[in-house]
Formats: sequence, structure tokens, C-alpha cells
Amino acid sequence: MSLLVVGSVALDSVQTPHGSADEVLGGSATYFSCAASYFTPVRLVGVVGEDFPREHCDMLARRNVDLAGLEFVPGKTFRWCGRYELNMNDCTTLDVQLNVLGQFEPKIPAEFRDSKYVFLANCSPRLQMNVLSQMQAPKLVVADTMNLYIENERDELIELMGMVDGLILNDSEALQFTGKHNLVSAAREILSRGLTFVVIKKGEHGAMLADANTMFCIPAFPLETVVDPTGAGDSFAGGMMGYLAKSGTWDAAGLRKALVYGTVVASFNCEGFSLCKFDSLDFSDIEARYRQFEELTRF
Amino acid sequence: MSLLVVGSVALDSVQTPHGSADEVLGGSATYFSCAASYFTPVRLVGVVGEDFPREHCDMLARRNVDLAGLEFVPGKTFRWCGRYELNMNDCTTLDVQLNVLGQFEPKIPAEFRDSKYVFLANCSPRLQMNVLSQMQAPKLVVADTMNLYIENERDELIELMGMVDGLILNDSEALQFTGKHNLVSAAREILSRGLTFVVIKKGEHGAMLADANTMFCIPAFPLETVVDPTGAGDSFAGGMMGYLAKSGTWDAAGLRKALVYGTVVASFNCEGFSLCKFDSLDFSDIEARYRQFEELTRF
Repeated sequence: MSLLVVGSVALDSVQTPHGSADEVLGGSATYFSCAASYFTPVRLVGVVGEDFPREHCDMLARRNVDLAGLEFVPGKTFRWCGRYELNMNDCTTLDVQLNVLGQFEPKIPAEFRDSKYVFLANCSPRLQMNVLSQMQAPKLVVADTMNLYIENERDELIELMGMVDGLILNDSEALQFTGKHNLVSAAREILSRGLTFVVIKKGEHGAMLADANTMFCIPAFPLETVVDPTGAGDSFAGGMMGYLAKSGTWDAAGLRKALVYGTVVASFNCEGFSLCKFDSLDFSDIEARYRQFEELTRF
Repeated sequence: MSLLVVGSVALDSVQTPHGSADEVLGGSATYFSCAASYFTPVRLVGVVGEDFPREHCDMLARRNVDLAGLEFVPGKTFRWCGRYELNMNDCTTLDVQLNVLGQFEPKIPAEFRDSKYVFLANCSPRLQMNVLSQMQAPKLVVADTMNLYIENERDELIELMGMVDGLILNDSEALQFTGKHNLVSAAREILSRGLTFVVIKKGEHGAMLADANTMFCIPAFPLETVVDPTGAGDSFAGGMMGYLAKSGTWDAAGLRKALVYGTVVASFNCEGFSLCKFDSLDFSDIEARYRQFEELTRF
């Protein structure tokens, strides 16, 4: 079924102990789209500036990402610059230039409004609600968020949580939002805001899915070499939503498999800078690692 | 099959956000024994001082822990005092009084020397090797260690690693020992020291088992209320070794199940101060949570 993502498209500069990459393709919507594209075509809504290299559009188009919703506006593309420490978990943001993203007001193209699966990547809850108001009858809406909005737009975020089916966020964000010190308590409180499910990402420690009745906990796929974790969370969401859109349901069993696919796709993404790893990745690789993950967790 | 543990018996004073406990029963051999006792009788070797309350011996005896190897010597029992922070992971050691543990030279009673399953709880690798030299023909020997010995007795620890089947240690200790920043690399390097398997404990994030060919990763059991995590690692080891000793094998499938039992028993231990939770815990509770854990991780 049709899958829409609204989020950022960026040019990233990344330093890691394995090297660095300058002005490479990044952004939440980009990572999400590439990851999801292994499962289903993706409709992307975002904004870039005049300086955005056309070859990135070509790459996305080749991956079955529909760019009818990618606005080109005067100015420079959103830029992010960060450095990862030796453990590859701690990341210092060195520079952020919002540029054209600062004035972004997502306009959903008419032909995208019937999308059944919708992912509201990390941006202001006000904009996320604005996107929702443009949609016709989505079957599943999942939103991401971050510390900035938890701190500065808490009321709007809570309003959004009553309007979407699922929320996906990091462990530290779940604790921050709830003021709790325990993820199980945090998950329960987040669910009480009107969500059907919440996915808490724990980076190298895996992920947790909670709904009113059950929980599902999985480790991350253990990687010996993490080259660049940028976009891992968005790739996770892309694998997860891509699988759900492809299967056309999101029952409890489907959500569990979706989390595993998200985990698998995110693990590949961490093995190269930017989206490089996706260049050489086939769906058969994803299926093979999915089976490895089964083997890794079976008892 | 017969299971032996050599380790500390302590009187702990613990402060947590949930309250505090003064001079309560603790120590690695104690936690291990109680946890393992759900699966098989346990033989304990340790030392206490004249001040050690006899009711603790009675409790252990009731749990089928054979105390023939518990020495009573003049002086005071080992004491540890610590404080857990709000997240229940960070722990500050406020005071350590080695007392009679400082001169401990484990003497394995003649009737314990035929033990087939041996757990060398966290103590000096020199003493751990000394214990090994007293054993007849153990079928499985697993050792624990800690940052202190990694730092100060590295050569002896490496020698020990060539003499045991398995090593169990925390993630931070695995990284410290190897100088790596990645647990998969660390596990491989640890294995190269002559071990058949290594278990890396990650606290609230679960555990990882690695041998030459495979890995097994599991989350921790998600608890909403952690009252006191003291002894969680030793309870984990107790559940693991208890299950293995009971089943009488330690093949790959058995080790996986053993890690899950360890996880389950450790989770119960965290729900009360000291060993209180074990007072009211039946094997049927462990089996029920084992099934919950299956449900929690199945996809």
C-alpha cells in the first residue's frame, strides 16, 4: 500500500573514528525513503535549496522514491555537521544550518493525499499536525519526535499523540517526555496519551514495542564495525513502515516483524557513510540478515 | 549434576530511591547459590566472620545450599555499602571493608572436589586458579571477573582464561579488558584467549553469548520497578549455571536456555532488597516468567 514520508532532506558532514564525509546526502526523509524502498514505493515530501545536487534526486528516483513532493526553493539546503566518538554512540552536533528547512510548510501533492501509510519524520508537531490535516484517510500514521519538541512544543506534541496511531522515539526522549527513570513506566505513560503503540529505540541496545496489552523487546543486530550511525533511527523507521505498507496490515504479529526488518535495515545503514551501503544492498541481503537475526535470538 | 560456587558472602548496606537496607545478606556466592538453588542443590565455598548472623545460614540451608565449605573465622564479615541513583544503573560504592575476605584462601572440602559444574565468582584470578587446582574433573567451569583484576592481575586473568570453559563479565569490563570500543570485537578477542564461550552482561540491556561460531543476544526482562539491582549479575550466573547443572549438558541450545533462565532469575532478584524476593519465589514463578520472556521476544 502507498507509503508517504514527510521530513528533512539534508547535506551532512560527518566525522567518525573511521573517517569523514563532507556534504553527503542525509536527512530523515531520505534515510527513511531509501530503507522503505526495499519493501514498497515511497512518496517523499520535503524541501531542498537550489544547491541540492541533482544526482541525489536521480538516486532516489531509481529507488522508486516519488519526488513529486520535494520542493526546490531559493536558498541553501539544510545542513548538519556532527562528530561521533570512539564508541560510535556519543555524537556531538558541531553545526546546524536550517536554511530552507526553517520556513518549510509541507504541502502534500494532491496525488499523495490518499496515502494509506504515513510517517511523520522528526519535525515540529505543529507541522506534523498540518500534514495530517491534508491527508484523506490514512490507515496507519506513525510520528517521530525529538528532545527539542519535547522541551519547546510539549502541548502540541501531546495533541499530536492523540491524532496518530504510533509514536517512535529514543529511550532518552521517552524518559525526558515522561520525567520517568524507567522505560516500562515511560512506555505506559506515553501510551496513555491516546496512542495504539509506541516504539522506543535504544540504539545499539535494540528496541522495544509496547501497546496496551503486550511488549516486544529485541536487541540490535550486533555489528563488528559501525562506520556511521547517522540515519540509523530513520532507516529503522523506514524498514518498519516499509514492511507494514507492503504487508497491508499492522496487527500485533506484523508490528513485531516490522521492528525486526527495521533493525536489519538500520544495521546495514550503519555499515557505510551516508546512504552508501544502500547502493550495493539487495532485498536478498535483507532477507538473509533477517534469518540471521532469527538465529541470533532463537532459544 | 553437582554445582559448586566459590565467592564472597557479605553484609551489604544499600541505598536506593526506593529505600535502604542495612547490613543485609549479600555477596556473590550467596546470590549465586540462591538463584541456582531453584534448579539443583548448590555447594558453597566462602568465608564469614564471627559476626555473621546464623539465620542467614539457616535460610541458605533451607534452600538446599550445602555450607560445608563456608568457613567461620575470627574477625568481621566482608561488608559493602553502595548507593544507586535514580536510573537504578549507576551505583556509587560508598564503603568496602574486606575484613575476613582479605585473607581468604579457598579450601574445597574433600566431598566437594568431585563437583561437575563449577562457578568461580568474582575474585582474584590467583585464587580462582587455586580453586581449580583442587577440583578433580569438572565438566564445566565458568569464571566471573571485574575491573579490579583486569587492571591489576591481567596476566593471571589471561592464564585463568586458558583454564576455564566460559567467562562471564560486564560489557564495560569486556571493553576494558580488550581495549576495544565494540562488544562483538571484544567478544572475539576474549574467545581467542582459549575460552569456549563468553557471556557479556549488559545490565538492563540484556546479555550476549558468543562462541567460535555463533552469537546469541537477548534483552533483559523489562521491569517497571527495580527495587535493588545488587546481586543481579550473580543471580544471572546462578540461574544460568543452575539450569546447566540440572540439565547435565552445556551444548549450544542449552547455553541459550540457560541465559534466559539467568535473565529471568536476575529480574526477580531486582524486585526486592537483598535476597528478599527469593523468600516468596517458587520455581513455578520462574517457569511462568520464562514463558513471558518467550512471548516478549517471539516474532
